[in-house]
Amino acid sequence: MNLKKKPGLDLSGSFISLLWRWRGSLYKLCYKELICFLVPFGIVSVIYRQALNSEQKSLFEQVVRYCDRYLNMIPLSFILGFYVTIIATRWWQQCMALPWPDRLMLTIAMYIPGCDKESKLLRKTLMQNCNLMAVLVFRSISESVRTRLKSLEDVVNAGFMTYAEMETFKAVEADVNLYWLPGLWFSHRLREAQARGRIIDSYGAQLIMKELLEFRSKCGILWSYDWVSIPLVYTQVVTLSTYSFVIACIFGRQYTDNGSTDISIDVYFPLWTVLQILFYMGLLKVAEHMINPYGEDDEDFDLSYLLNRHSEVINLGTNILTSDRCPPMEDENL
Amino acid sequence: MNLKKKPGLDLSGSFISLLWRWRGSLYKLCYKELICFLVPFGIVSVIYRQALNSEQKSLFEQVVRYCDRYLNMIPLSFILGFYVTIIATRWWQQCMALPWPDRLMLTIAMYIPGCDKESKLLRKTLMQNCNLMAVLVFRSISESVRTRLKSLEDVVNAGFMTYAEMETFKAVEADVNLYWLPGLWFSHRLREAQARGRIIDSYGAQLIMKELLEFRSKCGILWSYDWVSIPLVYTQVVTLSTYSFVIACIFGRQYTDNGSTDISIDVYFPLWTVLQILFYMGLLKVAEHMINPYGEDDEDFDLSYLLNRHSEVINLGTNILTSDRCPPMEDENL
Amino acid sequence: MNLKKKPGLDLSGSFISLLWRWRGSLYKLCYKELICFLVPFGIVSVIYRQALNSEQKSLFEQVVRYCDRYLNMIPLSFILGFYVTIIATRWWQQCMALPWPDRLMLTIAMYIPGCDKESKLLRKTLMQNCNLMAVLVFRSISESVRTRLKSLEDVVNAGFMTYAEMETFKAVEADVNLYWLPGLWFSHRLREAQARGRIIDSYGAQLIMKELLEFRSKCGILWSYDWVSIPLVYTQVVTLSTYSFVIACIFGRQYTDNGSTDISIDVYFPLWTVLQILFYMGLLKVAEHMINPYGEDDEDFDLSYLLNRHSEVINLGTNILTSDRCPPMEDENL
Amino acid sequence: MNLKKKPGLDLSGSFISLLWRWRGSLYKLCYKELICFLVPFGIVSVIYRQALNSEQKSLFEQVVRYCDRYLNMIPLSFILGFYVTIIATRWWQQCMALPWPDRLMLTIAMYIPGCDKESKLLRKTLMQNCNLMAVLVFRSISESVRTRLKSLEDVVNAGFMTYAEMETFKAVEADVNLYWLPGLWFSHRLREAQARGRIIDSYGAQLIMKELLEFRSKCGILWSYDWVSIPLVYTQVVTLSTYSFVIACIFGRQYTDNGSTDISIDVYFPLWTVLQILFYMGLLKVAEHMINPYGEDDEDFDLSYLLNRHSEVINLGTNILTSDRCPPMEDENL
Amino acid sequence: MNLKKKPGLDLSGSFISLLWRWRGSLYKLCYKELICFLVPFGIVSVIYRQALNSEQKSLFEQVVRYCDRYLNMIPLSFILGFYVTIIATRWWQQCMALPWPDRLMLTIAMYIPGCDKESKLLRKTLMQNCNLMAVLVFRSISESVRTRLKSLEDVVNAGFMTYAEMETFKAVEADVNLYWLPGLWFSHRLREAQARGRIIDSYGAQLIMKELLEFRSKCGILWSYDWVSIPLVYTQVVTLSTYSFVIACIFGRQYTDNGSTDISIDVYFPLWTVLQILFYMGLLKVAEHMINPYGEDDEDFDLSYLLNRHSEVINLGTNILTSDRCPPMEDENL
Repeated sequence: MNLKKKPGLDLSGSFISLLWRWRGSLYKLCYKELICFLVPFGIVSVIYRQALNSEQKSLFEQVVRYCDRYLNMIPLSFILGFYVTIIATRWWQQCMALPWPDRLMLTIAMYIPGCDKESKLLRKTLMQNCNLMAVLVFRSISESVRTRLKSLEDVVNAGFMTYAEMETFKAVEADVNLYWLPGLWFSHRLREAQARGRIIDSYGAQLIMKELLEFRSKCGILWSYDWVSIPLVYTQVVTLSTYSFVIACIFGRQYTDNGSTDISIDVYFPLWTVLQILFYMGLLKVAEHMINPYGEDDEDFDLSYLLNRHSEVINLGTNILTSDRCPPMEDENL
Repeated sequence: MNLKKKPGLDLSGSFISLLWRWRGSLYKLCYKELICFLVPFGIVSVIYRQALNSEQKSLFEQVVRYCDRYLNMIPLSFILGFYVTIIATRWWQQCMALPWPDRLMLTIAMYIPGCDKESKLLRKTLMQNCNLMAVLVFRSISESVRTRLKSLEDVVNAGFMTYAEMETFKAVEADVNLYWLPGLWFSHRLREAQARGRIIDSYGAQLIMKELLEFRSKCGILWSYDWVSIPLVYTQVVTLSTYSFVIACIFGRQYTDNGSTDISIDVYFPLWTVLQILFYMGLLKVAEHMINPYGEDDEDFDLSYLLNRHSEVINLGTNILTSDRCPPMEDENL
Repeated sequence: MNLKKKPGLDLSGSFISLLWRWRGSLYKLCYKELICFLVPFGIVSVIYRQALNSEQKSLFEQVVRYCDRYLNMIPLSFILGFYVTIIATRWWQQCMALPWPDRLMLTIAMYIPGCDKESKLLRKTLMQNCNLMAVLVFRSISESVRTRLKSLEDVVNAGFMTYAEMETFKAVEADVNLYWLPGLWFSHRLREAQARGRIIDSYGAQLIMKELLEFRSKCGILWSYDWVSIPLVYTQVVTLSTYSFVIACIFGRQYTDNGSTDISIDVYFPLWTVLQILFYMGLLKVAEHMINPYGEDDEDFDLSYLLNRHSEVINLGTNILTSDRCPPMEDENL
Repeated sequence: MNLKKKPGLDLSGSFISLLWRWRGSLYKLCYKELICFLVPFGIVSVIYRQALNSEQKSLFEQVVRYCDRYLNMIPLSFILGFYVTIIATRWWQQCMALPWPDRLMLTIAMYIPGCDKESKLLRKTLMQNCNLMAVLVFRSISESVRTRLKSLEDVVNAGFMTYAEMETFKAVEADVNLYWLPGLWFSHRLREAQARGRIIDSYGAQLIMKELLEFRSKCGILWSYDWVSIPLVYTQVVTLSTYSFVIACIFGRQYTDNGSTDISIDVYFPLWTVLQILFYMGLLKVAEHMINPYGEDDEDFDLSYLLNRHSEVINLGTNILTSDRCPPMEDENL
Repeated sequence: MNLKKKPGLDLSGSFISLLWRWRGSLYKLCYKELICFLVPFGIVSVIYRQALNSEQKSLFEQVVRYCDRYLNMIPLSFILGFYVTIIATRWWQQCMALPWPDRLMLTIAMYIPGCDKESKLLRKTLMQNCNLMAVLVFRSISESVRTRLKSLEDVVNAGFMTYAEMETFKAVEADVNLYWLPGLWFSHRLREAQARGRIIDSYGAQLIMKELLEFRSKCGILWSYDWVSIPLVYTQVVTLSTYSFVIACIFGRQYTDNGSTDISIDVYFPLWTVLQILFYMGLLKVAEHMINPYGEDDEDFDLSYLLNRHSEVINLGTNILTSDRCPPMEDENL
């Protein structure tokens, strides 16, 4: 039994110990940008010290002051703070909208009895129809699932769909995304099962239907999050602010002989500036990853894992752990 | 099968690559305002350098300082930050309130059986009544849908309504918005269908009714968002702040011979000021577009697409993909 | 058919065009406060320039500096930003809690059939009992509704209540707000109707009851918002901050001969200060109007309109548009 | 009929008029702290002016500058802004979680008919069991209710519980809070009532049960809010910040002969500082009162009033206003 | 009867009195960090005063200015403010998602009658299956529960599971977390109980099933919060900011002979700096504890207490307080 088989990042431990992590870390995400800052910074610094004559130096110092002033003009921390808060809210709502078949599985286990082959087949087919909706939605919204399941044949091979279902699916001529089609099959099959008396009562059929609708709604919400994204302008404003800040830093944070009057030590490595860039760039990278949470980055929701998990749970719940494998009712204390 | 036929803007890719987009971009939205800033800025600059004598120049420099001081007095980033957050929340809630007929369609597919013509007609009529409510609400709140469907005749021609329904609709004398009327027809028809035994049990009728009420609620929420908008004062405060900032920039950011003591390079193009204006104006434009999300801008919800999609899904789900086109139940692994 | 008969303010159009509106505008709300600032400002200015000798002038300039320093000490934009956000959230939740009888009307139309007089009376009475709860709650919370419906007799005359109901209502001796009483009548009448077989099945009665409870809950939420308001202290802090800012401006923003060293032009009209006061005062006025959204201001929820609308919808849905006025079911495309 | 018998504070009227209120006001809450600031401030001021020689004065002026610098170092407005927002959200969620028996009462009125004594007793007992849960939870979380109802005997005397119930309650040996026990009695009694045919159908019993569960959930939420409070550290950070600000003000805002160069008037009463302290202290007091909303302060939820109101409503709804006091159904317009 | 047996921290009393608490306090959480700041600060201070010659002192003063400037560059209060708000929201949502078996227990008490041994066993087994899900989820997410219940044998010994159940549980070969398995047993046993006529009607079975699904959903939400945590980058940004602030303080807040011109008193203990570090470090510690709320810190949710409470409540509600211990129905006032 795997207690903590979780694909996400582990945040236990004190915050100070988290600083040394590499996977999904600030350093891993931002080291490229840091290099892109440090190399030009060094080149400009060398040119100033070696190549310029005193008149050019004086002009250069003007440029430094001009850029430095800009760094105070732009309220980066607010813009990033509000933006990251909006993105983080959205990201978590998407996580909460991921569909889980467990409620439906329990309902079906309660209302569709039987350990015979036909009952197992009925339960499993219903659950797989439901799960197939999730598979198809995930294919629509996630690059990584689309890579794994390129064609419907791959979906069939991965066991999410039968061959006959694929045939039927492909035969539909439609202009719209058909991810809801397995839900329609589910409805037809559920009605048929009820008509054949395989559901113990009408309350059960109603409850199963309600759970299917909930599952369907969650798929629809995921699709809506993919359909309507945060306005591009907002993202561009934030990105442009951050990168223009970094570029202004290349000049504005240079040490100059006649710089600010109170500090006259020549610092070769711009330590504080690097830290500041790390913070702002780190927040921007957080947003960049949370806006598309279905990829293959360290922090992304692992949809492939989820689909495999759902498949196994469905198989266990409908096919293997039937009521004859239920432990006897006893109370050792009575 | 169209995997990613989405009308919204695609935000995949790193943020840096998003900077080069044009459609729905910061540049597209703000270039007019930028020109309106740059042209006066240039004219003022030329007048100062060419036309003024030294006394006038001295007076002008006072004006520059006076305006420059104002630029620090007004906390634009906060006002915009709070305002955009409120607008963005509202915008997303409107998106989540868009009614989708899919849940109702699945419920009807489950509870109203039959592949004969009459059953198909019953299912389709119920679904179209429901969808018609959405059409009528969209006509009330969206300029672009109103343009497409000018009169009720257009609605009939687009296939959202039958001619008889239009006649009945027009015959009602009322002083209120009647978008809920098709819901009333739905109720009457559902009761009649239940009386004629076309619904397999009373649970089904109840569940169908519940789903209709949910659909109706969402239409009502959309209408409420249209009825009560963010107070005009708030929008005016934000707009006035931003535009007064831009106007103050035309003077306050001018280069003067005796300007701030530490920067003496004459910069012809106000690069940082342009970036700053882009940020603030960009945020304002984000808000301007999110406050009326039903238009025809690049970022708006595409209601026309949605209506067409709903029509096709309804036709598929009630008329074409009936239970006789459901794939057989089989388990290739068993 | 009235497509856009909405009493609220229209926010369509670009933000720049919204600046010229008068109704519900910043200018309309703040012009009195502006005059209260400008007149003393002018008087003080005239006294300084005309009446004071040089020693008094010097003292006055100290006062100006003393007040000016205060203007930077008080972080008005944050306090207002957080306050307005909390108020705006509350205001919108109240709008979403306004009860609408439409869901109940559709349910009753589905489950209580019949075009005869008795059925119509039953349906209408039930709906009017429900609506009466809203009327009584609105009377409790809204000054403007209370003005329109001063006594219960006015309620009867306006058609929201029958005379017999008023008699019964008045006969109850109680110490508590009785707005829920019509809900009790509704319960009794619904049970009686079910006993007499006028509801097609028990599912219907249950669903009608559920919808009534939802309606009742919304009335209760409105009442709670009226009962518990934002703590007075918070409002006082914000108001005192803003007004002390304005008063400090009267002195602190005066032009003095020996004022700040870098600006020496004598500005008669304090343009930027006026703009700044407009922004802060505008935000305060937004909050002032959103905290009591049931009045008769331009931005308030129009409860009278809502009550009239509900009455008409109820009459149409239960009395006039009965099932015999439902258009025939046909599909022109089949 | 009491239209506006509300125990909460009335916020109607313009904000400016709210400034003169005393009950629950900024002044009432903060005058003690203000005195604690003004008295030491005066003493320090007198000592500086009268007792110190010029060398000591010079040292004192250093202290003044040292403290004054701190006042700018600490971003009190943000810390308070975020804190108050979190507390206010929590406070309102607690208000929304207050349990109201009205929904249950309406459901029982619908489904348990009869004007005889036994029916009345059944209805009343069920409702009182439900209300008793609220009483017991309120005793657990509210100091003021605990004061009013010290022992279970007081609860019996107040009419919330019968003597027999108290006996049974006391007889239970348990280590946990038993406020849910009346809910268990409710369940048993409801089942018994259904078995004896006193509920008109099973749908009714189910709906009554659902409403009870909602009531129980709300009691549980209240208990959870009491169980898990905002982390103490957060509160300490905010309190310590505010009080250290006030203490630093005692020194840092003193007038000194050689103080800041541009202001040389000797101000005896620190007007602006007093206002600033009022704002920050006021926000802290808002939070202090909202974190424990069940006390006896002016702004607290009046739980005693609520319990009395519930008792009276329950008595009216189950015992007095039975169906024989329901007005006849008539339509004066028909 | 224990009125206020609550394991959480008590926040009653005025804020000023909360400052002297030690348990869960700012001082307890931050004293180590304070020592880590004060010791190096003292050492650096001593070296400067004793060991350096005047040239080195001059260089050192440059370092002090360099670090001091950084302290103003980094907007720590915003970054922390936004971060803590996000973490606090998440923390509270986790608290609200803790599953409570009380609703299910009441439903079972209503619908599964009988005071005989078999009825008691059925009720208790169902409830314990439900509770076992919570136990298994808590073991997955909480270090402290995992310590208490190391193996499944410990779970059996603690009485949460029977031996036979453990055998069955262990016999399942699966690659996924099986915490939902007891829910499956619940479904099978509920169906069997319904088949044997032990549930009074089908409505009851449906309601019991619905409550189980709610319980299951809450377990799933807890698991999701554990699976997907706040992006590591965000936490690293905040941590790095705070610690780099503290390190910069060690140098930047040193007293120097030629420091800022207006303050020349030599302060040995950096009082204000210590306060400032306490505030920022305190906020960081708040976040650190709220991000992992299932540990054994003073502020953590006490899951062990919760499990014991649930066990006792289940035993009382299903086994001991059966309907024969329900007090008689009487109304002393009638």
